[in-house]
Amino acid sequence: MKKVAVIMGSNSDLPVVEKCINTLKEYDVPVEVHVYSAHRTPEQVQEFCSVARQNGFGVIIAAAGKAAHLAGVCASWTTLPVIGIPVKAAEFDGMDALLSTVQMPTGLPVATVAVNGAANAGLLAVQILAVEDGALAEKLNSARSAGKEAVLAADREIAGRY
Amino acid sequence: MKKVAVIMGSNSDLPVVEKCINTLKEYDVPVEVHVYSAHRTPEQVQEFCSVARQNGFGVIIAAAGKAAHLAGVCASWTTLPVIGIPVKAAEFDGMDALLSTVQMPTGLPVATVAVNGAANAGLLAVQILAVEDGALAEKLNSARSAGKEAVLAADREIAGRY
Amino acid sequence: MKKVAVIMGSNSDLPVVEKCINTLKEYDVPVEVHVYSAHRTPEQVQEFCSVARQNGFGVIIAAAGKAAHLAGVCASWTTLPVIGIPVKAAEFDGMDALLSTVQMPTGLPVATVAVNGAANAGLLAVQILAVEDGALAEKLNSARSAGKEAVLAADREIAGRY
Amino acid sequence: MKKVAVIMGSNSDLPVVEKCINTLKEYDVPVEVHVYSAHRTPEQVQEFCSVARQNGFGVIIAAAGKAAHLAGVCASWTTLPVIGIPVKAAEFDGMDALLSTVQMPTGLPVATVAVNGAANAGLLAVQILAVEDGALAEKLNSARSAGKEAVLAADREIAGRY
Amino acid sequence: MKKVAVIMGSNSDLPVVEKCINTLKEYDVPVEVHVYSAHRTPEQVQEFCSVARQNGFGVIIAAAGKAAHLAGVCASWTTLPVIGIPVKAAEFDGMDALLSTVQMPTGLPVATVAVNGAANAGLLAVQILAVEDGALAEKLNSARSAGKEAVLAADREIAGRY
Amino acid sequence: MKKVAVIMGSNSDLPVVEKCINTLKEYDVPVEVHVYSAHRTPEQVQEFCSVARQNGFGVIIAAAGKAAHLAGVCASWTTLPVIGIPVKAAEFDGMDALLSTVQMPTGLPVATVAVNGAANAGLLAVQILAVEDGALAEKLNSARSAGKEAVLAADREIAGRY
Amino acid sequence: MKKVAVIMGSNSDLPVVEKCINTLKEYDVPVEVHVYSAHRTPEQVQEFCSVARQNGFGVIIAAAGKAAHLAGVCASWTTLPVIGIPVKAAEFDGMDALLSTVQMPTGLPVATVAVNGAANAGLLAVQILAVEDGALAEKLNSARSAGKEAVLAADREIAGRY
Amino acid sequence: MKKVAVIMGSNSDLPVVEKCINTLKEYDVPVEVHVYSAHRTPEQVQEFCSVARQNGFGVIIAAAGKAAHLAGVCASWTTLPVIGIPVKAAEFDGMDALLSTVQMPTGLPVATVAVNGAANAGLLAVQILAVEDGALAEKLNSARSAGKEAVLAADREIAGRY
Repeated sequence: MKKVAVIMGSNSDLPVVEKCINTLKEYDVPVEVHVYSAHRTPEQVQEFCSVARQNGFGVIIAAAGKAAHLAGVCASWTTLPVIGIPVKAAEFDGMDALLSTVQMPTGLPVATVAVNGAANAGLLAVQILAVEDGALAEKLNSARSAGKEAVLAADREIAGRY
Repeated sequence: MKKVAVIMGSNSDLPVVEKCINTLKEYDVPVEVHVYSAHRTPEQVQEFCSVARQNGFGVIIAAAGKAAHLAGVCASWTTLPVIGIPVKAAEFDGMDALLSTVQMPTGLPVATVAVNGAANAGLLAVQILAVEDGALAEKLNSARSAGKEAVLAADREIAGRY
Repeated sequence: MKKVAVIMGSNSDLPVVEKCINTLKEYDVPVEVHVYSAHRTPEQVQEFCSVARQNGFGVIIAAAGKAAHLAGVCASWTTLPVIGIPVKAAEFDGMDALLSTVQMPTGLPVATVAVNGAANAGLLAVQILAVEDGALAEKLNSARSAGKEAVLAADREIAGRY
Repeated sequence: MKKVAVIMGSNSDLPVVEKCINTLKEYDVPVEVHVYSAHRTPEQVQEFCSVARQNGFGVIIAAAGKAAHLAGVCASWTTLPVIGIPVKAAEFDGMDALLSTVQMPTGLPVATVAVNGAANAGLLAVQILAVEDGALAEKLNSARSAGKEAVLAADREIAGRY
Repeated sequence: MKKVAVIMGSNSDLPVVEKCINTLKEYDVPVEVHVYSAHRTPEQVQEFCSVARQNGFGVIIAAAGKAAHLAGVCASWTTLPVIGIPVKAAEFDGMDALLSTVQMPTGLPVATVAVNGAANAGLLAVQILAVEDGALAEKLNSARSAGKEAVLAADREIAGRY
Repeated sequence: MKKVAVIMGSNSDLPVVEKCINTLKEYDVPVEVHVYSAHRTPEQVQEFCSVARQNGFGVIIAAAGKAAHLAGVCASWTTLPVIGIPVKAAEFDGMDALLSTVQMPTGLPVATVAVNGAANAGLLAVQILAVEDGALAEKLNSARSAGKEAVLAADREIAGRY
Repeated sequence: MKKVAVIMGSNSDLPVVEKCINTLKEYDVPVEVHVYSAHRTPEQVQEFCSVARQNGFGVIIAAAGKAAHLAGVCASWTTLPVIGIPVKAAEFDGMDALLSTVQMPTGLPVATVAVNGAANAGLLAVQILAVEDGALAEKLNSARSAGKEAVLAADREIAGRY
Repeated sequence: MKKVAVIMGSNSDLPVVEKCINTLKEYDVPVEVHVYSAHRTPEQVQEFCSVARQNGFGVIIAAAGKAAHLAGVCASWTTLPVIGIPVKAAEFDGMDALLSTVQMPTGLPVATVAVNGAANAGLLAVQILAVEDGALAEKLNSARSAGKEAVLAADREIAGRY
C-alpha cells in the first residue's frame, strides 16, 4: 500500500494533527510524520516532496496555521494529491489558514478540509488510497455503518427522553 | 481507468464547471456529467452516489453555490473521495458556498478547492487517479513542466522590458 | 393539533436544542425529538421527512453546526415549513452554519433563526401552528404581554437606581 | 384562506420583492402589498401589524436592506409569523441586512430567508398556510415535482452533451 | 442643561452601559436611565422618544446587542440626536449589532460608537451638549488634558524602563 | 448659529461628500468645506481643528476611505463633536473605513454614520445644532413629515397596483 | 545603491505591479523585475532569493493574489526585507491575499502594504534604502512636500467652491 | 548604528510589544521605547516623529489596537520606514487594527506585520538596518539557521515517535 506523509509546520500543531495520524493508523495505512516548516526549513520540504512519489507515498497531508503556506509549498514540489489542514491559531478562528490553503491558483490544487479537520484529512487520504483498494473501501464502508449506528443509538436515547 | 463523475447543482453552474470537464478530458480520464440538485432531486443524488463505486467511478466532483450542500450530500451516500467546488453566486463572493462545502463534520470529508476552482477540481481528480497509475502521473509531471515553461517565458518577456 | 418535529444533527447539539423543546412544551405543542444526521443517517432523514406531513407533523425544526446541511436536506424531502437553527461550533461563531442554513436556493426555503436561537425556533413553530388556532394565538399574546411586563419591571428597578 | 401581507421598507425594494408577490399569486394566496418604513412611517407599521391577525392575515413578509429593522419592528407589534427578506444594498452584499434580520432576541423570531430570497419568502408563506390546507399542500408538492422535472431535463440535455 | 436619556434594550446590558452613565455623571449632566426593548416594549420606546425633546432631553443614547434595532427605533420617533452603542453578545463580537446600528437609511442617522463603547457614547453626548455650553466645553478640555497627562506619565515610566 | 466644517481626506471623496454639504445648505447651516489629508497635510488638520471651537464651529464632519484616520485625527485636536463618514473605496465595501472610524479608544468618540452615509452625517450635524435651536428643530420635524408623506405616497401607488 | 527586486507571481499581476516599478524608477532606484511563481517555479524563487543579498539587492518586493504565498516563500530563502503586495483577484477583494501575506509566523516577517498597494510597496522600498542614503531621504521629503501641495491646491479649489 | 523607536499607543499594549523590544535587544540594536497616543498625545507623536531621522533613528515601530491610527499618524510626520503592529483588542481579533494599519493611502506606506506580530516587527526593523550592515545581516542568517535547527530537532523527535 502507498504510504501517507503527514507534515506539520510546527510541533505546536501536533495536538490537532494527532487525530489525523490516529485515523490513518486505524486503517492500517503506513504513515510517516514530519515537522517541516515551509518557511524555516524550505529545503526539507523540497527534498521530501520532490521524491515522495518515488519513495512510495501516495498522499501528502500538510497542516499549518496563520499564513498557512505549507500545503501549497508541498504542492509546488510534487504532483501527488496534497491535503491541507487549516489549523486554528490565536486569531481569526483559522480563516486566515483556510484561505491561505484553499485559494490555490490553477494548476496546483490543495484538497482542503475544515479548520482543524485533521481526522477528516486522514480519512480523505484513506478514501484516496481506497480508490484502487477494495479491502480498504470495505473498511471505509464498515466505519460509515458504525457511524450510522452511533447516531441511531443517540436517537433512540434522546427520542425516548421526550 | 476509474471514471470521474462531475455533478453540478444547476445548469447555470456549467460555465464554471466546464473547466473541470475540459481538464479531465485533457488527461483522457473517462468522465460522466450530471445536473443533480441536492434539494430538487435528492433521489437522483442518492441513486447515483450510492452505487458510484460499483459502477466504476473513482472520484465524484460536486459543484454548487450559495448554501452549497451538494458535495456533502454526495458524501453522505458514498465513501469515494468527493471533491467540492464552491461556486460564486450573486452574494458573498462564494464565501457561503466555501464554508458550506469545507466545514464538513468528522467522518465525511469533502476535498474542497478554491471558489470557482473548477480546473483544479479536475486536476485533483486526476492526481487521485494517478496515485496508482504511473502513466497518468507522468502526464501530470509533463503538464507541470509546461506550466513552469510558461512562467519562465513570461519572465523573459517582462524582465526584458524593464 | 399538528405535531412539531425537532431534529438535531448530533446529540452534542442537545444543550442548545433543549430550549427549543422546552418552548414547544410550554405551549403544549406535541413534539417529537430525533437525532438524525444529514450525512451519517441520510436514509433516516429521508424516511422521516418524506412522510412527516401524512404522519401529522406541521413543522420540522432542524439544528446543526458547521456545514449545517440538515435543515436543507430535510427541506429536500418535504414541503412542510422547515425551521433551521444554526448551531455555534468551535469556529466562526456559527457564521458557517448560518450561511449554510439561510442561503438556500429558490424553491426550498428554510426559515432561519439566529445562531443558537433555539427558543425562537420553537416559538416560530408555535406561531405557525397558531395561524389557524386562535387559542394558541391567545397564548402567544399572553406570553408577549408577560415579556413586556418583565421589561417594565426591569425598567422600574434600574430607572429608580439612577 | 388567510391573507399574506408583503411590506417593503422602500419602493426601491420592489424589483426584489416582486418575485415574492408573484410566487404568492401563483398559489392564489390573497396578498396585500405595502410600502411602510420602519423608520419613516413607524405608526403605519404599528397600525397595520397590531391588527393584522384580526384583519385576516396569516403571515407578514417584510423586506428591507442595510440596517434592516423592518421585519423586527413588524414582529414587535404582532405574534403572527414574520418572514424577513434581507435586501442587498450597495455595500456588504446584504450581510448587514441579513444580520439585522436574523439575529433577533429571544421571544421575537423572524423567519429569515436568503439575501434577496424573495421568491422563497413567498413560498415559505405558502408552506405556512398549507399546514392546515391540504389543497395548498398539494399545489406545493406539484410545484416541487415540476422543479424536479426541470432538473432532470437539464441533466438529460447536459449529460448527453459530454 | 438638557437631559440625556440612556436606554438599554435589556437589563443584561447594564454592565456595559454603566460606563456611559458614569461618564455623564462625571460631567454633572442630568441623566435618566431606562430599560426599554425595541421589540418587547415598542409602545414605551414610542411614548418616551416622541416627547423627549419637549420633556427637556437633548440626546438619546441607546444600547443593544445582536439585531440591535433599539437606536434606530428611537430615531424613528424623534429628531433629537440618537447615539447608538452596539453591545457585544455571544456571537460575532458585536459585528451584528454594529451593522444594525450604523447602517441606517438616509434621513435617520444614528451616531454610532465602537462596540461596547459606552464611555465614549456618554462623552459624545457631553460634547453635543457642550456645543452651546462653554463651561461644559471647558470641562471636556480639562479631561482631555488629564488624559494626555496620564499617557505622558506612562511614557515616562515605560521609556525609563528600557 | 454655529458653523459646521466638512473635511474630506481627498478631493476624490467629493462625489460622496456633496450630499453632506447639500443637506447642511438645505437647513441654512453655515458650512465651510476643506480638503485636508490626515497623512499628507497633518499640520492643516491640526491648525484647523485645534481652534475650530473658538472660530465658531459647532461640529466637524470628516470623510475618508480605506485606513480612514481623518475623523480620529480631527478628534485628537478638538473636543467638538466629530462625525465620521466612512467612504467606500475599491476594496472591502468600506468595511476598513468603517472600522477605522468607529472603533475609537475611550476618550475620543467619533460619531460614525453608515458607509457613504454623507447625507446622514449632514443631518446629524443639524440635529446636534438643533438641540439648543428650536427653529432648526422645527425644520427637522417638517422634513421628517415630508419623508413620511413620500413613503405614504409610494405606498398608495404600489399598494394600489396589486 | 542596492537594487530592488520586484517579483510577481503571474504576468496577469503586471497592471497592478507597474505602479511599483514606476515609483522605484522615479527615485532612480535600480530595479530588476521578474515573473516567478511560488508554485510553478519554486526553483527560480529559491535560486533568485537565496543569493539576492550577495547579488546586490537590498529589498525584495513580491506581489501575488488569492493564496498569496509568494512573499512568504521569498522570505523563506533570504533574510533581506521582503515587502508583500496582496493583489485583488476575482473573489474576496484581496482579503485572502492580505491574510496569506501578512499573517506570517514568528521569524519570517513580510512587510505588507494595502491590497493592490503597489505604489506604496515601491515607496517603502525607497524608504528602506534611504535609511542610510541622505540624498534619497531628501527626495522622499521633497515628494512628501509635493503631495502636501497637491492637497492644499485641491483644498483651495474646493473650499472656494462652497 | 541607527536607532529604532518603538511606540505603543497605550501602556496596556506592553505585554504584546515586549517581544518586539526583546528581539531588537537580542540583535544589540539601540532602541528607544515610548508610550504616545495618536489621539491623546498627538503633539508628542508629531514632535518625536518629525525629527526622528535627524535624531538618529532608522525605523519607527508603532503598535496599536482597535482603530489603530498610530502607525499612520507616525508616517504622516516622517519619511522613515514605519512598521505597524496591529494589536488584538477585545473585539474582532485585531481585524479592525489590521485594516486600520495596512490600508494606507498612496504616498504613506506602513509596513504591516501580523496581528500581535511584535517579534516580527522587531525582526523586520533589524532586516532593514541590515541592508547596509553586513555584520547584522550575518546575525540574521545565524538566527535563521538556529530556527531551522529547532524545526529539525522537533522533526527528529516527532518523526521518531510514530
